[in-house]
Amino acid sequence: MNITLPDGSVRSYERGTTALEIAKSISEGLARNVLTGKFNGQVIELTEPLAEDGMLVLYTWDSKEGKSAFWHSSAHLMAQAIEHFYPNVNLTIGPAIENGFYYDIDFKGEAFSEKDFKRIEDKMLELAREKAEFYKKSISKADALSFYQEKGNPFKVELIENLNDGEITFCSHSNFTDLCRGGHIPNTGFIKSVKLMSVAGAYWRGKETNPQLTRVYGVTFPKQSELNDYLTMLEEAKKRDHRKLGKELEIFTFDDDVGPGLPLWLPNGGAIIELLERFAKKTEEDAGYCRVKSPHIARESMYIKSGHLPYYKDSMFPPMEIDGEKYYLKAMNCPHHHKIFAATPKSYRDLPLRYAEYGTCYRYEQSGELFGLMRVRSLQMNDAHIYCTEAQFEDEFKKVNDLYLKYFGVFGIDKYVMRFSKHDPAKLGQKYINSPELWEKTEAMVRKVLVNLGVNFIEVEDEAAFYGPKIDIQIYSAIGREFTLATNQVDFAQAERFDLFFTNEKNEKERPLIIHRAPLSTHERFIGFLLEHYAGNLPSWLSPKQVSVLPISDKYVPYAQKLVELMKKNDIRALFDDRNEKIGKKIRDAEVKKIPFMLILGEQELQEESVSVRKHGQGDVGKMSLNEFFEYFENQLTVKL
Amino acid sequence: MNITLPDGSVRSYERGTTALEIAKSISEGLARNVLTGKFNGQVIELTEPLAEDGMLVLYTWDSKEGKSAFWHSSAHLMAQAIEHFYPNVNLTIGPAIENGFYYDIDFKGEAFSEKDFKRIEDKMLELAREKAEFYKKSISKADALSFYQEKGNPFKVELIENLNDGEITFCSHSNFTDLCRGGHIPNTGFIKSVKLMSVAGAYWRGKETNPQLTRVYGVTFPKQSELNDYLTMLEEAKKRDHRKLGKELEIFTFDDDVGPGLPLWLPNGGAIIELLERFAKKTEEDAGYCRVKSPHIARESMYIKSGHLPYYKDSMFPPMEIDGEKYYLKAMNCPHHHKIFAATPKSYRDLPLRYAEYGTCYRYEQSGELFGLMRVRSLQMNDAHIYCTEAQFEDEFKKVNDLYLKYFGVFGIDKYVMRFSKHDPAKLGQKYINSPELWEKTEAMVRKVLVNLGVNFIEVEDEAAFYGPKIDIQIYSAIGREFTLATNQVDFAQAERFDLFFTNEKNEKERPLIIHRAPLSTHERFIGFLLEHYAGNLPSWLSPKQVSVLPISDKYVPYAQKLVELMKKNDIRALFDDRNEKIGKKIRDAEVKKIPFMLILGEQELQEESVSVRKHGQGDVGKMSLNEFFEYFENQLTVKL
Repeated sequence: MNITLPDGSVRSYERGTTALEIAKSISEGLARNVLTGKFNGQVIELTEPLAEDGMLVLYTWDSKEGKSAFWHSSAHLMAQAIEHFYPNVNLTIGPAIENGFYYDIDFKGEAFSEKDFKRIEDKMLELAREKAEFYKKSISKADALSFYQEKGNPFKVELIENLNDGEITFCSHSNFTDLCRGGHIPNTGFIKSVKLMSVAGAYWRGKETNPQLTRVYGVTFPKQSELNDYLTMLEEAKKRDHRKLGKELEIFTFDDDVGPGLPLWLPNGGAIIELLERFAKKTEEDAGYCRVKSPHIARESMYIKSGHLPYYKDSMFPPMEIDGEKYYLKAMNCPHHHKIFAATPKSYRDLPLRYAEYGTCYRYEQSGELFGLMRVRSLQMNDAHIYCTEAQFEDEFKKVNDLYLKYFGVFGIDKYVMRFSKHDPAKLGQKYINSPELWEKTEAMVRKVLVNLGVNFIEVEDEAAFYGPKIDIQIYSAIGREFTLATNQVDFAQAERFDLFFTNEKNEKERPLIIHRAPLSTHERFIGFLLEHYAGNLPSWLSPKQVSVLPISDKYVPYAQKLVELMKKNDIRALFDDRNEKIGKKIRDAEVKKIPFMLILGEQELQEESVSVRKHGQGDVGKMSLNEFFEYFENQLTVKL
Repeated sequence: MNITLPDGSVRSYERGTTALEIAKSISEGLARNVLTGKFNGQVIELTEPLAEDGMLVLYTWDSKEGKSAFWHSSAHLMAQAIEHFYPNVNLTIGPAIENGFYYDIDFKGEAFSEKDFKRIEDKMLELAREKAEFYKKSISKADALSFYQEKGNPFKVELIENLNDGEITFCSHSNFTDLCRGGHIPNTGFIKSVKLMSVAGAYWRGKETNPQLTRVYGVTFPKQSELNDYLTMLEEAKKRDHRKLGKELEIFTFDDDVGPGLPLWLPNGGAIIELLERFAKKTEEDAGYCRVKSPHIARESMYIKSGHLPYYKDSMFPPMEIDGEKYYLKAMNCPHHHKIFAATPKSYRDLPLRYAEYGTCYRYEQSGELFGLMRVRSLQMNDAHIYCTEAQFEDEFKKVNDLYLKYFGVFGIDKYVMRFSKHDPAKLGQKYINSPELWEKTEAMVRKVLVNLGVNFIEVEDEAAFYGPKIDIQIYSAIGREFTLATNQVDFAQAERFDLFFTNEKNEKERPLIIHRAPLSTHERFIGFLLEHYAGNLPSWLSPKQVSVLPISDKYVPYAQKLVELMKKNDIRALFDDRNEKIGKKIRDAEVKKIPFMLILGEQELQEESVSVRKHGQGDVGKMSLNEFFEYFENQLTVKL
């Protein structure tokens, strides 16, 4: 049989060869690391013999699919370990989740708590060392039902009753068998580290009127070191939670009268926004962008033209009716920018044109989906649209990429991945603009540019924007958490829909290509990311207050006042703590506020016109003359505004 | 009889004394200038004998009432002159309007056109020199009807038929008599200059089915020089029309798909907005403001709390329904700012707190009321709210006033008037928050501050904000047109409604006072004003492009390129005209774009590394070395950003 691999190569194997054997034929390394696979689009067991020609994709730990199979298999392993100590329990369902897995179990009144985690973990590791292979087999509905009826498990019986005969499978490894659709790792030996995370109550099938089960959460890894890293990250992430830091540092708040998902930015947040915008505007001005400005609403006709109103309606706010016409809050800035492009005639000499706007958009998210600054309904976007010729496309795309890298450098973002998101031909006309040839052409063009740029990217199906392919840039915070921030989209559809054109060298009308880009994402998401990334210790250029001036007693208040004035003149944002408090308390309070520098002023400093400098999180860095301090301060600024 | 004057003084006169005689008793100058008067709130003829005690207000040309009487009297004079040449015409109505007056006349088929203006104007001036006094007399309905029936004037007959016997008056001067409620100047001699402006068709009583009349527009002044100034201003205003300039200079546009009253800002407009904001943010940062940021929508409950729903509903956009709740676009930023104030506990040490935001608000204006940038539906407001103690109020108010004066200085606004707008007690609970004592107290407080500041102000009834008294600052453009831009409002109501408080020195809860202020108004109105004020010739600091670089041929393009780069490094916004066009055309195009400086580059400039500098609207200012030019340029910047 002929097996096609993702790189397009075709290999011949005897009928009945397993995916694992195919992996081994490709490389020993792949065979050691492969966790799951898809054959002709269907998830398979790697140990299953393949019987026909087809397309085979193999997944390792680095992929979502690999992790999912790993954690789903771990749920089986945990169930096996739990059954060892609690032979009478009834298992129900045990899926993989974003970070790990759970199993909902009926302990039939037997006690199970965190105290039991250790022996379960140990047993799991012991069982894993058996390297027991996972096998899947089809079973008739009657046999499946009698298996679980014999075991006295009404939950599995209920599950099976809702399945059709012929589609029911059991999966087994070692002495453990479970009702399961499959998608496991080759054997339990891959599981090298185990941690049960928590235990909670959960109603059977989520219904309050159903019996309550015990949900046991766990996570596993192919290496012990990865578990350690993960646990460290979790601990750090908790400390760095942007909602916690946002409150402590008085950056943003939510209010019931304003509404969920609509953050209010307190003065410290307002300052950060202002500084980020100043930086972005300067950077983008240098890169040849010009700024435009548009209202937050438009008539229905605009969004019919743009296609937002079939393709994006669910994410838009409902309309307002004015003078008998519907107006919508904008969910994107693009249609407004296209109208600005169209307002005056354009020639090839005007291109590329780069319109930038920190435009606030409104998107409807279900209230249950809202989460701090990460999922909101109002989005202040670092937006821009580049109108260029086809010949300019590659260069413009590269320049956008360079801008990303520049921003990432400034914010110390070392790790990022580009996801090249493509359309799904099956959803043309529903989720995507129905122009199959243009999709093909544009996706090919983007792929070519990505290859030429030599950047690392992965291709993802069915995640494009409705008007064209998109590149999501996933970045990783200092503690390794993944955030999808920047996007870069190529638009072949809107120029046609808005009748945008320029006069080319031959004096003919020609459609521009449009690049949508938002390297700094929205203020909401980016500031949320930065709070975690820096653990709230913003670099001094971005810190709402940069210096805290702390006289050790009232006697030094006049000197402190003079210093504060001097700093204002030097564009240093100083906080003056003139409270009648002990210096120790003043320092502690400045530390809590995470103000980068503290200047302690006492008798010696007054006499010498000097300052004793403390750096946040670092302590005393010595006494300096005023000039020395200004120079020191200046040298610590990673961005000059 | 006792006559009370506006300053509160009371003078005794014999019964039957006229207002004009009273004016003369006060001063000869007043008698020479007084145009009309109100006695006990009713408009009177100055020549009418007064018969009882009462309050007398006298008006001169400087007041709206004075101008109105002047122009209404001029309509009589014009009708007299027209009847002189066209004795058979039927007069209908002839009111004063904003700038002048008109009379709707049935010429009964006789030709009347602009060619006739001259002889009418001359006749008017001739008749005016008679200094004929205006007299009003009551007339019975029967006599009035027979007067106009005899004349064969069905229009006046129809008007009289709709009046009640006993309230009908005729006014006469010289040989001319008209049905009229009165309110004239003492005599025609005050009218020293006359200009008929235009002639147009107008249906009797505005109904298309009624006979068509001829409407003759005119304007008059008490001095010839004032007419000249007025005509010059009109001519200038036409050239300076912000809608015309906005299009020519590519500053803003409107689009049908976006909607009426919702300007889109093209790159040049975006640049002006950016520069204005940079200037305002810098100025306000220096003045101790901090920046906050809020979404453009909020729940219904917010606006019920704030009082916008009932008191301001007509000016708000209709609601959007989300998750079963109503959300509104914000018409003002205040409620959001109050929520930011309320988000963290405040002590007296934190006050005054000054929250600034360039917040975009949305207000519903009837589509017929929309006018360029002057009346729009989206408003980017130079907004701020100051939260202070009662003791801080006067100082904060003064600081706001100082900020106004600083801004006015920068933009060359020499003339301004403050209108202190108060509530109307009759409209408490409808148009105004129903707290009569607080209105009295706050209005008294504002009056005291205005008096202490020594600024010129006038008091106006029934124009307050719904939550407190307000000061509108009317400014005059370079050509003398009046604009209401800045406002300054005192708010006693919102702190209570939003339960805002701070902890005072005695550790008690206390409500802050709130000052609302917007010295630079909205971008829309302010940029509209600036375009007229500067006739589009923005000062170089505010000009989207500051310098146009014009090589006289292709040979000098490399040198020009070098210069453009150099300017970019020096933060000068340069436009590079590298087209293959004659230098004359390039200069003309730069002049049309109103770019402040042009640098002409030819052989000599290349050899010497110099530039030949032209200033927009001024021409050649000589050859300079590059350093000389940079210094020259720098010296011309009235604002450094």
